[in-house]
Amino acid sequence: MIYPKSIASLIEQFQKFPSIGPKSAQRLAFYLLRMPLAEVQNFAKIIVEAKENTKTCDVCFNISTSSPCEICSSSTRDKSIICVVSESKDLIAIEKTNEYKGLYHVLQGLISPMDGIGADDIRIKELLSRLTNEDVKEVILALSPSVEGEATSLYLTKLIKPFGIKVSRIAFGLPVGGDLEYADEITIAKALEGRHEI
Amino acid sequence: MIYPKSIASLIEQFQKFPSIGPKSAQRLAFYLLRMPLAEVQNFAKIIVEAKENTKTCDVCFNISTSSPCEICSSSTRDKSIICVVSESKDLIAIEKTNEYKGLYHVLQGLISPMDGIGADDIRIKELLSRLTNEDVKEVILALSPSVEGEATSLYLTKLIKPFGIKVSRIAFGLPVGGDLEYADEITIAKALEGRHEI
Repeated sequence: MIYPKSIASLIEQFQKFPSIGPKSAQRLAFYLLRMPLAEVQNFAKIIVEAKENTKTCDVCFNISTSSPCEICSSSTRDKSIICVVSESKDLIAIEKTNEYKGLYHVLQGLISPMDGIGADDIRIKELLSRLTNEDVKEVILALSPSVEGEATSLYLTKLIKPFGIKVSRIAFGLPVGGDLEYADEITIAKALEGRHEI
Repeated sequence: MIYPKSIASLIEQFQKFPSIGPKSAQRLAFYLLRMPLAEVQNFAKIIVEAKENTKTCDVCFNISTSSPCEICSSSTRDKSIICVVSESKDLIAIEKTNEYKGLYHVLQGLISPMDGIGADDIRIKELLSRLTNEDVKEVILALSPSVEGEATSLYLTKLIKPFGIKVSRIAFGLPVGGDLEYADEITIAKALEGRHEI
């Protein structure tokens, strides 16, 4: 006897999630089976509702419950700046700082030839059409300093420059509270490269 | 703008699971939102079905789709040996070895005064009643070598011995493939203690 079929398929489902291996999937499934039935039904309802209520904003491609999204349709936002991010998660991370009041554009990925993701597979066309139609003065590239992030940033810079729009990139360097001793070489190199006069 | 309400409650739900922190919960939620609606609905269905179809065996307290469970009602099992485990997960782990052909008893926990779990909170009474009513010759204690596992094993040994039933405990020692150099002191001590003549 291994698992009853219904439990086996539950474990299998959990294993499909990112960074959930067989052991974690088993732990999640057993936790769920110990929950009262009403809570399990509620969980199932929340899952389906979240999916059903989630739209993608047709302007910035952020996940939202409406399209255009809250940010794109807000009247207090500075519509002359667009911050380009890879995923909605990154947008949320920036929103949490409460420092940025411009608009966003979610690429829904990064250029990654290794994974077969080209410039046409992410929302670059849509960004360019926004630059053509909207009165944008600056584009901030807030992409990770990974190989894919660098490649996408370079590609976007080349495409946006001809519009006569300022292109900037968020700073990379030592994280606040980080210790120079424990920082990796690339971060230190980036921190040196990005040094500014005081 | 932080998360739309439906997404926030989805993340919150995932955070209730064991060893899922805010970041992992967010990752799981976003993965789910990227799945096609039909798959999400199927996932929700599987969750509820697994819960609805899962019973606890009235004899051994293993999770099962029937009661008595497949193992308890099997005619090929050796009914004179009961292997005592803490959780159904442990039972599955032993079943996977294909080495054990006896019955089981799932305690559904371990004695842990720190967490307020006493002997009456786990299925010890039920084990003793099985020992009284069934023709059992050996009880194997397959509990972890943790403080709680040790305490529960000691407690059970004291209770079972008067029945005149053999009580044994699984061996602790170096894991197969493990290197002596990297083993912790307690494991090495257990391995020395459990040495046998060759």
